Amino acid sequence: MPAFEQVVIVGVGLLGGSIGLAVKERQVAGEVIGIGRNQARLDEAIRREIIDRATTDLRAGVQQADLVVVCTPVELVSETAKDVLRAAPANCLVTDVGSTKQAIVDALSDWAMQFVGSHPLAGDHRSGAEFARGGLLEGKMVVVTPTPQTNPTTEERIGGFWSALGANVVTLAADEHDAAVAVTSHLPHAVASALAATMPKSMLPLAATGFADTTRVAAADPQLWRQIFLTNREQVLAAIDDFDHHLAALRDALAAGDEQQLEQLLAEGKQIRDALGN
Amino acid sequence: MPAFEQVVIVGVGLLGGSIGLAVKERQVAGEVIGIGRNQARLDEAIRREIIDRATTDLRAGVQQADLVVVCTPVELVSETAKDVLRAAPANCLVTDVGSTKQAIVDALSDWAMQFVGSHPLAGDHRSGAEFARGGLLEGKMVVVTPTPQTNPTTEERIGGFWSALGANVVTLAADEHDAAVAVTSHLPHAVASALAATMPKSMLPLAATGFADTTRVAAADPQLWRQIFLTNREQVLAAIDDFDHHLAALRDALAAGDEQQLEQLLAEGKQIRDALGN
Repeated sequence: MPAFEQVVIVGVGLLGGSIGLAVKERQVAGEVIGIGRNQARLDEAIRREIIDRATTDLRAGVQQADLVVVCTPVELVSETAKDVLRAAPANCLVTDVGSTKQAIVDALSDWAMQFVGSHPLAGDHRSGAEFARGGLLEGKMVVVTPTPQTNPTTEERIGGFWSALGANVVTLAADEHDAAVAVTSHLPHAVASALAATMPKSMLPLAATGFADTTRVAAADPQLWRQIFLTNREQVLAAIDDFDHHLAALRDALAAGDEQQLEQLLAEGKQIRDALGN
Repeated sequence: MPAFEQVVIVGVGLLGGSIGLAVKERQVAGEVIGIGRNQARLDEAIRREIIDRATTDLRAGVQQADLVVVCTPVELVSETAKDVLRAAPANCLVTDVGSTKQAIVDALSDWAMQFVGSHPLAGDHRSGAEFARGGLLEGKMVVVTPTPQTNPTTEERIGGFWSALGANVVTLAADEHDAAVAVTSHLPHAVASALAATMPKSMLPLAATGFADTTRVAAADPQLWRQIFLTNREQVLAAIDDFDHHLAALRDALAAGDEQQLEQLLAEGKQIRDALGN
């Protein structure tokens, strides 16, 4: 018997679509409903068996929901989740996949019985349901961010939902989460974007694998990332400042021609990167 | 009939070993000799059929050479190439694979009949002959850096050598090469290293694909990269300064909460990255 009768996905893009596929493949719910703004895209998602049924009407779409996963762009998550919670049954659970959590968790503090925030550390630099795949979450980490007020059963069932999709669930406070992803995800994006922007197009033919790897995430959607940065502004600014100090140290050692210090700094970077693997 | 009777590789590491394998697979030379400092490693390279014969004696090793490829660490290239040119037959051609070219080309300006510098834009973050593979240069770019004094036949034959290994040959002046790789290769390395160093080890479990991609090159050999940076110091410093301006612009837009400017900067980075592909 599936864990949920009906799962509703609001925003059937890369991540929402992948969740739909995984829910169906793993039979985690009896039925998957997709909610979006564009009927043609929703129809295409039904055709590709990402979702079973669809609607553009949020309130109507969540009437029978047991679990709603809000997969809209991050700056729309709080308002969308509130709309969902007002329209859905009182025992319906709600979570989201926003990349920053403090602002969302704060905005939904009145809904601690039904809502807990989530952030799947999965995705890629492409967007859209056409890139959705059922295995996207497999072996990936999902951070769940309860508050002291969160209903433990809600937290447990939503953690169980992500586990059922093959993800590894980790619990963090929202502010801890945001500080961590500022360094692990948002800073690399800022750096990759600035690095790509530094490259004159005339030199692109000389770019090898290293440049391609280092700048890959810069190809992601600017609108999405503008939202991520602005909803985690202070933490990202702190991470950039921290990075600036490390790069300045390397620059100073190079300017001074200090072989020993330069090699030491490069060795420190290597040590961290080696600890990550792959 | 092979293009060269005897090719000698000085320094049988990842790149030198891959050149040896490619020369043998493509029958570009009748024989491949390896020269190195460590007899046991040379014996292992013979066993793995990367080279046919080996010696630790540079002067003896180049006595019969038609082409010598100097694959030592970049700061040793100039002196090693001079030793080769003094000991080898007068009609022996010499090139190298150093990642920076101006200092090497300057140091070898007296040998314009026999020497021309090369830089294969190939390799990875690992080093050592155990990672050598005959296809490493296939479809990759090799920059050849003649001076106005370079013998055109020498330039042509060394270009032909790289083409025969499957590479695409591009000709650039040494200073143009160094300015380009400062941006396309050395700057990404400095940035990736500083980015890795910024990451507290406690946060590594939260690092996803984006961080792994963006920092991958930071795993490369610090000694090698210290040499690359110091032999291209002014150009790398200029590239870091240029990058700093781009990152500061992004930081300022974020600090100001300027949605439009932030999204515009991210879009500029995306545009360059998209032009690169993959």
